[in-house]
Amino acid sequence: MNIDVRISEVGPRDGLQSVASTMSTHDKKSWIEGASKAGIPEIEVGSFVPAKLIPQLADTAELVEFARSNLPDLTVVALVPNLRGLENAISTGVHGVSIPFSISETHSQNNLRKNHSQMLDEISSCLDCLSLTATDERPTFTVGLSTAFGCSMEGAVPEDRVLHFAERLTEMGVDEVALSDTTGYGNPAQLKRLVQGIWHHCGKDKLTSVHLHNTRGQGLANALMAVELGIDTIDSSLGGLGGCPFAPGASGNIVTEDLVFMLESMGLRTGINLEALIEVRKIVAQALPNEKLYGFTAEAGLPLNYSPAK
Amino acid sequence: MNIDVRISEVGPRDGLQSVASTMSTHDKKSWIEGASKAGIPEIEVGSFVPAKLIPQLADTAELVEFARSNLPDLTVVALVPNLRGLENAISTGVHGVSIPFSISETHSQNNLRKNHSQMLDEISSCLDCLSLTATDERPTFTVGLSTAFGCSMEGAVPEDRVLHFAERLTEMGVDEVALSDTTGYGNPAQLKRLVQGIWHHCGKDKLTSVHLHNTRGQGLANALMAVELGIDTIDSSLGGLGGCPFAPGASGNIVTEDLVFMLESMGLRTGINLEALIEVRKIVAQALPNEKLYGFTAEAGLPLNYSPAK
Repeated sequence: MNIDVRISEVGPRDGLQSVASTMSTHDKKSWIEGASKAGIPEIEVGSFVPAKLIPQLADTAELVEFARSNLPDLTVVALVPNLRGLENAISTGVHGVSIPFSISETHSQNNLRKNHSQMLDEISSCLDCLSLTATDERPTFTVGLSTAFGCSMEGAVPEDRVLHFAERLTEMGVDEVALSDTTGYGNPAQLKRLVQGIWHHCGKDKLTSVHLHNTRGQGLANALMAVELGIDTIDSSLGGLGGCPFAPGASGNIVTEDLVFMLESMGLRTGINLEALIEVRKIVAQALPNEKLYGFTAEAGLPLNYSPAK
Repeated sequence: MNIDVRISEVGPRDGLQSVASTMSTHDKKSWIEGASKAGIPEIEVGSFVPAKLIPQLADTAELVEFARSNLPDLTVVALVPNLRGLENAISTGVHGVSIPFSISETHSQNNLRKNHSQMLDEISSCLDCLSLTATDERPTFTVGLSTAFGCSMEGAVPEDRVLHFAERLTEMGVDEVALSDTTGYGNPAQLKRLVQGIWHHCGKDKLTSVHLHNTRGQGLANALMAVELGIDTIDSSLGGLGGCPFAPGASGNIVTEDLVFMLESMGLRTGINLEALIEVRKIVAQALPNEKLYGFTAEAGLPLNYSPAK
C-alpha cells in the first residue's frame, strides 16, 4: 500500500520512559503487535540505555528481537545514548537507531552528562563502529537534534546553532538528522525556518522526520506545517503518552490517533486503520492503569460516516 | 497597535450556553472586562434568545450595554437566532450580530426548528429590518455557516452545498458569511477548499472569519491553515469552554490561550497580553467551579524567556 506520510510510534520508548509505572514485556509486545497490525509502519520499541538508569526500558533487546521475528512489515527502531548502546543495538538486528544531540549544551549535560564536544566525539566513534559493520547488519543512523526549538533551562535556542550542528553532523557522515521539539516550545513558523534551513545547508534527504511534543497544544499545528513542507515521517505516541516530565498535567508527545485522524481526513494515506488503532488504547490503558491517556479523537469518537484517505 | 490576526472570544456565548452552570452577570462582566483589558479585540458576549430556552444567557442585553459603556476598545458582538433577536440586539447598540444557518438541514431543524427555506425567509426579514435601521445604529450582519464541515446527524456535508448557500446569502445582501465547524469534523485540507471556494464565488471580503471546534484535537491545525490562507478573525474560547454537548469529555472551542501562544510565537500580533489573559482564567475557574477548563499553555506555563510578536 502506498503511504503519503509515515508515522513512527514512539510510545514504547518516549512514552514509557516518562511514566512512573513499568509496563511488563508481555504487555509491550501486545502493544507493539497491535500497533503494527493496525498499520503503524515504524515503532521505536525502546532505548539501549543501562537498566539502572531507565529500568522501564530494560527489555529493549528482547522487544527488538520479538518485533524482527514476528512483525515482518514493521520498521523497528530504537534510541541509543552512546557507542555502547549502539553496539548492543546492532547485535539485535534493529533497522534504525537514533542518538540524541542537544542543541542546548545545558540540556546535553543534564540529559547525557556530556558537553557538545564530548557528544561529537561519541557520535564519531559510533560512525567508526558503523563503518566496520557489515552492510546488511548496519542500521540507519539518525541524530535527533534535541531542544532544537528551545530549552527549559536555556530558553530560546538560536536557529543558526541548529543549522550549524545539522551541517556539522551530516558532514561527519550521519545518515540523517531529525528535528526534535523536546520541550514543546516550537511553533509552525519556526519549524518552517528550521526545516528549510537544514534542507538548504545539508540537502533534503538529510532531514525527513520531526519529533514534536504537544506540551503547549501546538503539536498538530506543527505537524501540519511539517507535512505541508514535505516532511516524510512524524513521530507520535499512542494516547500522547509521556514526553514531558517537567510539565505535570501537560501531555507530552503528539497523540498518534489525533494525528492519523488529521492526515487521513486530509486525504493523506498513513496505511493505518484508525478504528483498529483506537482499540490498541485498551491494551495500554489496561497495562498502565495509573497513567492518563490523552486523545480527543478517541474520546469524541470518529465522525459519522468517517472516510479515511483512499 | 497593529494586529495581524484578530481573535474573537466566544466563551461568554458559546462556552456558557454549553455548560450546566449559570454564571452570574457580575462574573461575566469581570470576565469580559478582564479579557478586554488583556487586549482581546472582540467578544461575543451572549445571544438574544428567549431566556426560557437558554437561561444562562438571559442577561445578554445588560452585558452589551455594560461593554459598550465601559470598554471603548472592544468590538461587542452577539448571536441572534431570528428577527426578534436582531431587533432586541439593535436596541442595545451591539457592533455586530451573527445568525446561524446550518448547512445540514437536519441540524437546522433540531437547532432552530426551521428548514432551509424558513431560515432564508428569516434572514431576508432581518435584512429588511437592517435596511430600515439608521446607519450609525446598524450592526454588521454575519451568517455563520454551521455544520459546514460535517454534521453529527447527517455525516459528511457536500462542499458544493456550502458554496451554494454562501453565494445565495451574500447575493441576498448579508455583510459576511463565516465558516463554522460546529461538530469538530473539519480538517485543514477541507478548510482550505471551503475558504478558497467561497472567496472564488463570493469575493474575499465576504469571508474573513472562522469558528472552529477542537472536538477531535484539530482546532489549532485548522486555525493555522486559516491564518496561512489569510483569514483575519478566529473565534476561540477561554479555557476551551463549551462547544460540544454531544461529546462529553471532549473539549469544544479552540482554547484562546493556546491560539494566542501559537500566533504570537509565530510573530503574528494579536494585541493580546498572554500572561494577563492566563490570569483571566482565574475569574472563570472561580465562577464555574464545576466546569473543566482546558488549555495546554496555561497548564505547562509559558516558555522560559517567552517573547511575543513585535
